[in-house]
Amino acid sequence: MYNFTYSVPTRIHFGKGQISHLNELRESGEKVLLCYGGGSIKKNGIYDDAMKIMKDAGLTVFELSGVEPNPRIETVRKGVEMCRAEGIDMVLAIGGGSSIDCAKVIAAGAVYDGDAWDLVLNPSLIKGALPIYSVLTLSATGSEMDTFAVISDMSKNEKWGTGSPFMTPKMSVLDPTYTYTVSRKQTAAGTADMMSHTFENYFHHEKGSDVQERFAEGILKTCIKYGPAALDQPDNYDARANLMWAGSHAINGLIANGCQPAWCVHPMEHELSAFYDITHGEGLAILTPVWMEHVLNEGNKAIFAAYGRNVWDLTGEDDMAVAKEAITKTREFFFETMGMPANLKAVGINDETHFEVMAEKAAKGSVGSFEPLSKEDIVEIYRAALG
Amino acid sequence: MYNFTYSVPTRIHFGKGQISHLNELRESGEKVLLCYGGGSIKKNGIYDDAMKIMKDAGLTVFELSGVEPNPRIETVRKGVEMCRAEGIDMVLAIGGGSSIDCAKVIAAGAVYDGDAWDLVLNPSLIKGALPIYSVLTLSATGSEMDTFAVISDMSKNEKWGTGSPFMTPKMSVLDPTYTYTVSRKQTAAGTADMMSHTFENYFHHEKGSDVQERFAEGILKTCIKYGPAALDQPDNYDARANLMWAGSHAINGLIANGCQPAWCVHPMEHELSAFYDITHGEGLAILTPVWMEHVLNEGNKAIFAAYGRNVWDLTGEDDMAVAKEAITKTREFFFETMGMPANLKAVGINDETHFEVMAEKAAKGSVGSFEPLSKEDIVEIYRAALG
Repeated sequence: MYNFTYSVPTRIHFGKGQISHLNELRESGEKVLLCYGGGSIKKNGIYDDAMKIMKDAGLTVFELSGVEPNPRIETVRKGVEMCRAEGIDMVLAIGGGSSIDCAKVIAAGAVYDGDAWDLVLNPSLIKGALPIYSVLTLSATGSEMDTFAVISDMSKNEKWGTGSPFMTPKMSVLDPTYTYTVSRKQTAAGTADMMSHTFENYFHHEKGSDVQERFAEGILKTCIKYGPAALDQPDNYDARANLMWAGSHAINGLIANGCQPAWCVHPMEHELSAFYDITHGEGLAILTPVWMEHVLNEGNKAIFAAYGRNVWDLTGEDDMAVAKEAITKTREFFFETMGMPANLKAVGINDETHFEVMAEKAAKGSVGSFEPLSKEDIVEIYRAALG
Repeated sequence: MYNFTYSVPTRIHFGKGQISHLNELRESGEKVLLCYGGGSIKKNGIYDDAMKIMKDAGLTVFELSGVEPNPRIETVRKGVEMCRAEGIDMVLAIGGGSSIDCAKVIAAGAVYDGDAWDLVLNPSLIKGALPIYSVLTLSATGSEMDTFAVISDMSKNEKWGTGSPFMTPKMSVLDPTYTYTVSRKQTAAGTADMMSHTFENYFHHEKGSDVQERFAEGILKTCIKYGPAALDQPDNYDARANLMWAGSHAINGLIANGCQPAWCVHPMEHELSAFYDITHGEGLAILTPVWMEHVLNEGNKAIFAAYGRNVWDLTGEDDMAVAKEAITKTREFFFETMGMPANLKAVGINDETHFEVMAEKAAKGSVGSFEPLSKEDIVEIYRAALG
């Protein structure tokens, strides 16, 4: 196990009705910038509930709506401007990872003397942030309890992740009932996203991090059990609750600390989203089994076999055979059980036009990954995923 | 899954050499009360290293040594007096759970206007505490990352647990190499202690807390793998590291939140320690399989069978048979693999003299447990454990 520092200071209020804790925002001042997306929170009543609680607590709320599914730097800049103009004390996101990521970079940008895009390209420039709060309405990215944010500049086909301890939310409300209305498509994509976070942390070559590996397997088993349950029965509380809590732990450091994993599927997917604006979780599901097949070799077959035995309860003595069966199970889960689009053509990417340039950019992001991926490897993976 | 609030604010510096982070104590002031036990930290050099780092950081250290294995209220009172007399800013424990527990109640007692024993009997009186830090030298109690402390008043044969978010350490150093010199006896007892914490959280009747259950199983599997490894090879870094990290997560809320478990073996063991001052982990190991056998019934056999299948990889269709085999495995692990004393006679408790009064007190502590235990049940368990 490698040395690490573990610090997950986010206070989580988990369960039905926990939005009442929004009155705690008073601990950080009085003026709140509220970030949200397309207005679904107005339809389902969360917006009204939140506004009433904050008003009763004596908070003044300024609004930034219309945060995009892959949040744009232009929206971040707008939020930063509002923070400066209004003397905002804290930022609250109500929504999924996009709203929370946007809120994070706004909060960091508000105390940064320059353009917020700098903070996306160079996380080390983040030296502080306004306090960040969130109310989660989509189980997927884990942004509610982690240090990360992903922001896009579509004018340049750029989508990059950034991160800083300063961007860890101070408090997040996780009410599983808020995800009852999440569509089949987004439920599946969210489940694939948290499974992908887990895979990125799980596939590494460090042999002495059993605690983290067993926890990762627990998250995967939970997703495999409750992902389909949430599709079948959108208001199944236990399904929504377990997916929500699994998603938070998939990326808050619990399963990563001590293993030094280096992510590789996410950098490849970020290029897909940057060039084609596809749904992140669908891109991850499409790429994951292809990546697994591409990197599986004699040197790492035992790691994939352990995945098969511990997550899919596969038996059998031959590591390579079990490894291949585990990859098949992964593919079947995403594309049959969860009904996700199985290849790039199914999400509207029909040719190889941008593969070379995307692969070149992704290769930068996957340096040091589980099995190092060259630009050529990545082009091959994109091609195999085309369908 | 029940509603819960999750907040684990302790900053953990995990790994070799992380004691260098003791310079961070400057964040809380200048005057440190250092609590430790019998002086083993002077023999193995940890004391000298810590003192040098703190001196270099400009900290002034006051010392309270001689904290007992089951820490006494008299020692807590002495520490509280020192805090008041010297204007102490923070409390640092270097040691195992006993030193840390003692430091916690000293820290709370220092800001309480009354006798510290009040805070042991009534946790709701804890309204604040000096900042608490720890350097862990024994993997067992999880006190380095949780809200709890157990203090004894041997003059009254009283041993009670107390707890408060104010007593959560601000920062803890977890260096697995510090546990290389832990004896076979204490290594086994520590492993049994963390497994017992996990059992206490794991055996409950809530059906929808898969994340927590899978994590609990991961902790148990880690203990089962690395407990014997640490006995065989005391300086096996991965064994010591995984035990240490497993122990912290067994009781910091990760596997308890959302399940509402009510502990039952600990209250029974606390009476053994209060009356006979035996090693806590040995008492837990002795009582656990007896407790399991006593409470196993048609209504909960599926829960024990899941334990057998998921932790011990047992197969078989018949829940009751698998449940019984799982209990046998548990017994064999403690008493054969880990070589622990298998019954009360083996730790010097030879007759039933105090069983009635102990059972009466323990019954108070186990209200609402997995299967409610009456005074009569507890006497029966003590008798079955006698050997």
